[in-house]
Amino acid sequence: MILTPLLKRSAKGLSWKSLCFFSSTTSRREIRDVAELPERLHPEYHDTKHLELLCLHWPCPPRNVLITKKNSDPSITKSLVELAHHIHTTYPHVNLILEPHAAEEVHEQLCFPVYSSPTPRHEAPPVLRNKVDLIATLGGDGTILHASSLFATAKRVPPILSFSMGTLGFLGEWKFKEYKRAFREVYMSGAGVRYGSSLFEEDQPAAPCPDAPKESIAKDPCDSSAHIHPSTPMGWSSIRGMSMGNGRGARILLRNRLKVQIVSPSSRNPPPPIHAMNEVILHRGADPHLAIVEVFVGGRFLTEAVADGIIVSTPTGSTAYSLSSGGSIVHPLVSSLLLTPVCPRSLSFRPLVLPANTPITLRLSEKNRGREVDVSIDGVKSSVAVGVGMEVRVWGEDIRNREGVWCGGVPSIVRGRENGAGGEDHWVGGLNGLLKFNYPFGEET
Amino acid sequence: MILTPLLKRSAKGLSWKSLCFFSSTTSRREIRDVAELPERLHPEYHDTKHLELLCLHWPCPPRNVLITKKNSDPSITKSLVELAHHIHTTYPHVNLILEPHAAEEVHEQLCFPVYSSPTPRHEAPPVLRNKVDLIATLGGDGTILHASSLFATAKRVPPILSFSMGTLGFLGEWKFKEYKRAFREVYMSGAGVRYGSSLFEEDQPAAPCPDAPKESIAKDPCDSSAHIHPSTPMGWSSIRGMSMGNGRGARILLRNRLKVQIVSPSSRNPPPPIHAMNEVILHRGADPHLAIVEVFVGGRFLTEAVADGIIVSTPTGSTAYSLSSGGSIVHPLVSSLLLTPVCPRSLSFRPLVLPANTPITLRLSEKNRGREVDVSIDGVKSSVAVGVGMEVRVWGEDIRNREGVWCGGVPSIVRGRENGAGGEDHWVGGLNGLLKFNYPFGEET
Amino acid sequence: MILTPLLKRSAKGLSWKSLCFFSSTTSRREIRDVAELPERLHPEYHDTKHLELLCLHWPCPPRNVLITKKNSDPSITKSLVELAHHIHTTYPHVNLILEPHAAEEVHEQLCFPVYSSPTPRHEAPPVLRNKVDLIATLGGDGTILHASSLFATAKRVPPILSFSMGTLGFLGEWKFKEYKRAFREVYMSGAGVRYGSSLFEEDQPAAPCPDAPKESIAKDPCDSSAHIHPSTPMGWSSIRGMSMGNGRGARILLRNRLKVQIVSPSSRNPPPPIHAMNEVILHRGADPHLAIVEVFVGGRFLTEAVADGIIVSTPTGSTAYSLSSGGSIVHPLVSSLLLTPVCPRSLSFRPLVLPANTPITLRLSEKNRGREVDVSIDGVKSSVAVGVGMEVRVWGEDIRNREGVWCGGVPSIVRGRENGAGGEDHWVGGLNGLLKFNYPFGEET
Amino acid sequence: MILTPLLKRSAKGLSWKSLCFFSSTTSRREIRDVAELPERLHPEYHDTKHLELLCLHWPCPPRNVLITKKNSDPSITKSLVELAHHIHTTYPHVNLILEPHAAEEVHEQLCFPVYSSPTPRHEAPPVLRNKVDLIATLGGDGTILHASSLFATAKRVPPILSFSMGTLGFLGEWKFKEYKRAFREVYMSGAGVRYGSSLFEEDQPAAPCPDAPKESIAKDPCDSSAHIHPSTPMGWSSIRGMSMGNGRGARILLRNRLKVQIVSPSSRNPPPPIHAMNEVILHRGADPHLAIVEVFVGGRFLTEAVADGIIVSTPTGSTAYSLSSGGSIVHPLVSSLLLTPVCPRSLSFRPLVLPANTPITLRLSEKNRGREVDVSIDGVKSSVAVGVGMEVRVWGEDIRNREGVWCGGVPSIVRGRENGAGGEDHWVGGLNGLLKFNYPFGEET
Repeated sequence: MILTPLLKRSAKGLSWKSLCFFSSTTSRREIRDVAELPERLHPEYHDTKHLELLCLHWPCPPRNVLITKKNSDPSITKSLVELAHHIHTTYPHVNLILEPHAAEEVHEQLCFPVYSSPTPRHEAPPVLRNKVDLIATLGGDGTILHASSLFATAKRVPPILSFSMGTLGFLGEWKFKEYKRAFREVYMSGAGVRYGSSLFEEDQPAAPCPDAPKESIAKDPCDSSAHIHPSTPMGWSSIRGMSMGNGRGARILLRNRLKVQIVSPSSRNPPPPIHAMNEVILHRGADPHLAIVEVFVGGRFLTEAVADGIIVSTPTGSTAYSLSSGGSIVHPLVSSLLLTPVCPRSLSFRPLVLPANTPITLRLSEKNRGREVDVSIDGVKSSVAVGVGMEVRVWGEDIRNREGVWCGGVPSIVRGRENGAGGEDHWVGGLNGLLKFNYPFGEET
Repeated sequence: MILTPLLKRSAKGLSWKSLCFFSSTTSRREIRDVAELPERLHPEYHDTKHLELLCLHWPCPPRNVLITKKNSDPSITKSLVELAHHIHTTYPHVNLILEPHAAEEVHEQLCFPVYSSPTPRHEAPPVLRNKVDLIATLGGDGTILHASSLFATAKRVPPILSFSMGTLGFLGEWKFKEYKRAFREVYMSGAGVRYGSSLFEEDQPAAPCPDAPKESIAKDPCDSSAHIHPSTPMGWSSIRGMSMGNGRGARILLRNRLKVQIVSPSSRNPPPPIHAMNEVILHRGADPHLAIVEVFVGGRFLTEAVADGIIVSTPTGSTAYSLSSGGSIVHPLVSSLLLTPVCPRSLSFRPLVLPANTPITLRLSEKNRGREVDVSIDGVKSSVAVGVGMEVRVWGEDIRNREGVWCGGVPSIVRGRENGAGGEDHWVGGLNGLLKFNYPFGEET
Repeated sequence: MILTPLLKRSAKGLSWKSLCFFSSTTSRREIRDVAELPERLHPEYHDTKHLELLCLHWPCPPRNVLITKKNSDPSITKSLVELAHHIHTTYPHVNLILEPHAAEEVHEQLCFPVYSSPTPRHEAPPVLRNKVDLIATLGGDGTILHASSLFATAKRVPPILSFSMGTLGFLGEWKFKEYKRAFREVYMSGAGVRYGSSLFEEDQPAAPCPDAPKESIAKDPCDSSAHIHPSTPMGWSSIRGMSMGNGRGARILLRNRLKVQIVSPSSRNPPPPIHAMNEVILHRGADPHLAIVEVFVGGRFLTEAVADGIIVSTPTGSTAYSLSSGGSIVHPLVSSLLLTPVCPRSLSFRPLVLPANTPITLRLSEKNRGREVDVSIDGVKSSVAVGVGMEVRVWGEDIRNREGVWCGGVPSIVRGRENGAGGEDHWVGGLNGLLKFNYPFGEET
Repeated sequence: MILTPLLKRSAKGLSWKSLCFFSSTTSRREIRDVAELPERLHPEYHDTKHLELLCLHWPCPPRNVLITKKNSDPSITKSLVELAHHIHTTYPHVNLILEPHAAEEVHEQLCFPVYSSPTPRHEAPPVLRNKVDLIATLGGDGTILHASSLFATAKRVPPILSFSMGTLGFLGEWKFKEYKRAFREVYMSGAGVRYGSSLFEEDQPAAPCPDAPKESIAKDPCDSSAHIHPSTPMGWSSIRGMSMGNGRGARILLRNRLKVQIVSPSSRNPPPPIHAMNEVILHRGADPHLAIVEVFVGGRFLTEAVADGIIVSTPTGSTAYSLSSGGSIVHPLVSSLLLTPVCPRSLSFRPLVLPANTPITLRLSEKNRGREVDVSIDGVKSSVAVGVGMEVRVWGEDIRNREGVWCGGVPSIVRGRENGAGGEDHWVGGLNGLLKFNYPFGEET
């Protein structure tokens, strides 16, 4: 479905319903299998003058966009429909992917097919990992965390464009009302840098991705087996007037994740690691007894924790549960892991900040006498409880490979281009606006 | 004074007194000017398999060794004399430098001249910075801090070999009784790589460093794959029986320092930065009023602190005053700065851990109404009090230059070779032994 | 079974086994119903010169002694048998009550009947409340807490004589090896004060308590109608050589309890309050969502807590879970309740210490959307989960009635008579020995 | 000067200036000696149904009112003049006392004499203690603290009516604009209860104090030597239309003070104790070394504190410096003292809450090697520094004597009559409004 310019303009006065009635057919309201989509693109992240932020570079325009949303909030569902329509209308080559629940909920309201896959929440099928170029989230921190957790077993998370919906979130970067500017900025990111101006003249046929230098597209610096489907026709030129000029790419804050392995003493082959954006938590849960956990750092015994639980957190997670448990606030660009006890029995167990590349092992002591503890990874309780002798192994993800190429992490698209400022904005803003950090004493509200 | 091998051996049975009586003349008991000494050597620090530790490489044997000690402790003074004699006897080419106070105190007990310079404590003359190859400290953390502060205006601090004297220190790496092994290990570190035999034959004048073959410099003797050119005779050969075999270099923990500038709003040329190993503290001191400090991070206003004080600390300093003020414990290898308030009025001012390369500015607010605050750098009160409008600017020191060469920082020689373990030992040991970290609850002592 | 003096003496050389073999019949090894026992005695508590401690006064010697013990520890079971034998041998009129589990476990090893009642742990039948004069505990703090919880629905808890078994406990007052002295001290307490010397002459037949007017024994001084018949003959005279002289009564620390009611918004008749010695805890348990609790103090809304949980603790409980959650340590004689959040989301939720007589209401907010929280009272999870709109009401118990008579609380018999010192010993000792309060930094262990 | 009713009414339309011009003579603008005033009245405090609050009962109307104000704020000075005029106009028998500085500053603006005494701030002469019936403060918490400290050596502090001026204070009870209602309420407090209705009929001559039952006036339950000058003519009847009905007395929150003695080891006669409303602080001040303080509780050694300082605080002071140092918030009606360390070196030094009647001794350890620490009492630095071996002894003030009469403490007149509510309002209000206690996370401001 390609809207003519006329329609596009006049559509502003139409409700989505009438627009659908006019332009769609019933056959468009279908849910297709995500497996039909072309393979995922792997963007690059370039250093910028703002040391802490990177610039997003697509090898060619993103094609498969996953939109996730907070559940059980009708106004957010409405926003999802609005965003989907906008993307479909303005970027007709873009395929929209929804989670099964959301696809069921909204596909009747859309005049075009959406893609999904029949998987339960929290268990993203491998196919999803291979198809999503870009994620947009509508909700709060929890929704971003969920989106990230869909890629918990993947080395690379697609860039995440997050819209905060009402409740301010610490990671929620854009206001929903900015969605047109935000999406355009992300979609075009790298376009003005990589490609010649002729590609962006009006009415020129879409520049297929393969026209771009092959080596820059096919190479996933994290995974040599990745490649781009060569015959896919698409390009920035199909988007009229979208060119944003050289160097105006979307800015990325690459958030380190941590890797977790739950290992049984008897198992010969430990399971593949799961990634977490925020933290892994061992907690006694509903058990009235304190957990007794032996903590090893860099392979050496550090201490025996007797506590409600133990948190190993990324800096991103330092403003979440670790903070409630008394941990320090750590800037997301400090390469580190936090070890924070939850209600320790000892008076002298202070939170620790450790190098991200130091492995931390938490072993459930024999003293627990057969009891188990719960393990949660980014808020999702593991199906495996940790019993006596089992270990939770945690270490930081490398987000730069040996060649200095940025990969890994959670690429968070940060707002703040208009004033030319970097991503600190958000962190400082989150501290003050969300956490009420150092909230002034004694003043009238 | 050069002891013959015979004397060296027989000296073992002699007391220092009789030894001096026998071998020295009064004229040797003098204090010479440190300016007479040859220029300082700059060692290199090579990566090792222990990611976190580096290996020390002298270009040629260290010649000028500064020994600092804790004051007012006769038993430490005695140890100083013992150590000085050992070095002089075993490493006759080494010149010993003492601080003026110590030189006055002990030179009569030594049968050889020592070097010093007439400067007050805490104000190291530039000449010192240009002469010292190696520092040995006898005392606790305070003595190491003092030694480091002698180089507060220097970009490079000489390697520090610290002996803890009774009281366990967090940074105190070696027991005094190990001094022979410790000094030998440091002295020989990197030997075998650099120099030809002819340069180091007995009685030959000191071979200048630049004569060393260039290609042999890059090798890492800490890496087992490194190898020593077998036929290389070298300048350490004057030390009989000192060869420690291949690959046995001293291990270095390079501790980041921070840089501080105290800037007046009217001053056009800010003063050169001063380096701190632990922290810089703004504190109301004896003033009963809370200090009001505007905190800027990365050039952006973060918050207004109303507190007894504000600490900006290195990870090394995280176990010092910052810890008493509620800060987290940060491992020395986490590249970061801690911002920790001291007794803040607000309930919601939590300690922050920021990237080491983010500049932090603390500006004394106009609301202080003309009052000043004290500034201490590594425990030494600045002669300049900070008045309204003045700024304290802090940022982390780079310890690796653009070419990837390690420089800067405080090169701390860590103990732990015998069991092949790295420097973590010390940090974990300090947490448990010194801080009583997570001290077990409920057990009998 | 009454042992003759001869046997008593010679028994010292016999093992329990041989003693049982010699003196018991199989019929003695039975478990009798606690309902057969005479009614409970209510001692008085008199002020002493040590302001903070009271003196225990029995109206006549205690008859029914409940011994509780920590489970699953064979050495403690052995100590129980030893203590039971001692009491039976030395104080033949004393009836021993055991919990069902312990009675089953040990009655075969005893040559006399024990009393019990067929109730599950943690649900003391009313009959127990009416029969127990004195409690002895063998274990740690958990055992004392359990003993206290057996009387959670009673206004008066019998005096508790606690023996710590190996592991030091904060409330564990006596070492087990002191049991003979300890029991004698408690048993005789008040004897020398109230009664004439003639009652204690040797060879006088035991004055059985039942001779005393029934009504005066059963009466509770907390009931204003209670009084002791002055001429009541009864006594300790059956115990040879046990007189301890005037004024040498057992010292009592009367620990305040709190009262808890779990109230449903629809219920017209709130349930009778349950008493807690340590604390009542609302906790999210295994639910991943934070609990949202509206806190009312003295009937006024104070704040909305968003946290893992909320603790309302007595001063006695201030060294338990409240401390792990960051609460202050409050001396047991400060009449107060602590309100301590567990991992609150807000940075500015500090623990509060409130007057003991101020009612605190914790209401589960509508914002919890149908979720429930767990409630634990002295470590025992309530069978009633707290749902939205339900309230947990807490207030301090009065331990002195309007006439100034001490009643209520948990009367803890404190050790420390030998040096004439009061109960502070224990509190300070617990802080230092158990909690490692202000554990010295930097010293060798 | 007695204004006729006519003038009183018409005065509403006049500026203070014109009023002064009209009614005063230059001779009235004088400063008189406070010694000329009649002796101080001692009100009684009666229990009320609100357990926590007392009711103020004057034996006869207050005559001598001290007004203190925050310095260096012209708008507060203006308010002082306004309040003074109101009192003088409406309650012509009332004498106004000002501190010397304020008297100098404003007496030219008043058309009547004020009383003062030539003493420096912070050193109230004994004569002041014997003359002041009532204090009104204009400022914030600091001003109330100052007013209280004027009576630091007196057993009884006059009732304090505090007006908060702009900045909300934790103790500041009334808004300035309420001053007419507030002053009337305080002035009349007890009138409707004690005296017959005939005394309050219009136009009846002033009922002299001696008409009141002698025994109730002359008795100061705290000091048997107190008495009322019998011939003073005054009474509530001179105030037309002021009767507030029975039982509508001003409500009093009696805040416990603590008592401090600084004792030298050599001194035989310790100085008389000084009272503090908030806290006593030992602090290293500008000395870089930590203070080492031995802490004794109830005469027993508790611990050795190595810290920046130690605070012993009242519950009232628990929201001041103790809170900044990590102490709990303690309700003013919890009879207790807080022991809170300031930046202790040990990880395991938690704040303690101790019974108010337990003496606490802080002794400067020999380990301080001759150094001294600063002592501040309610923010005023003691002229005596505490040296090695010296002790600071602290214990709580009794606010109820053996006969159950309330005396001692700082009688704070609390607002909140209109809704019939008690003083909790203020405490809860202070927590939320001033401290931003548990400030909601995540909401928009």
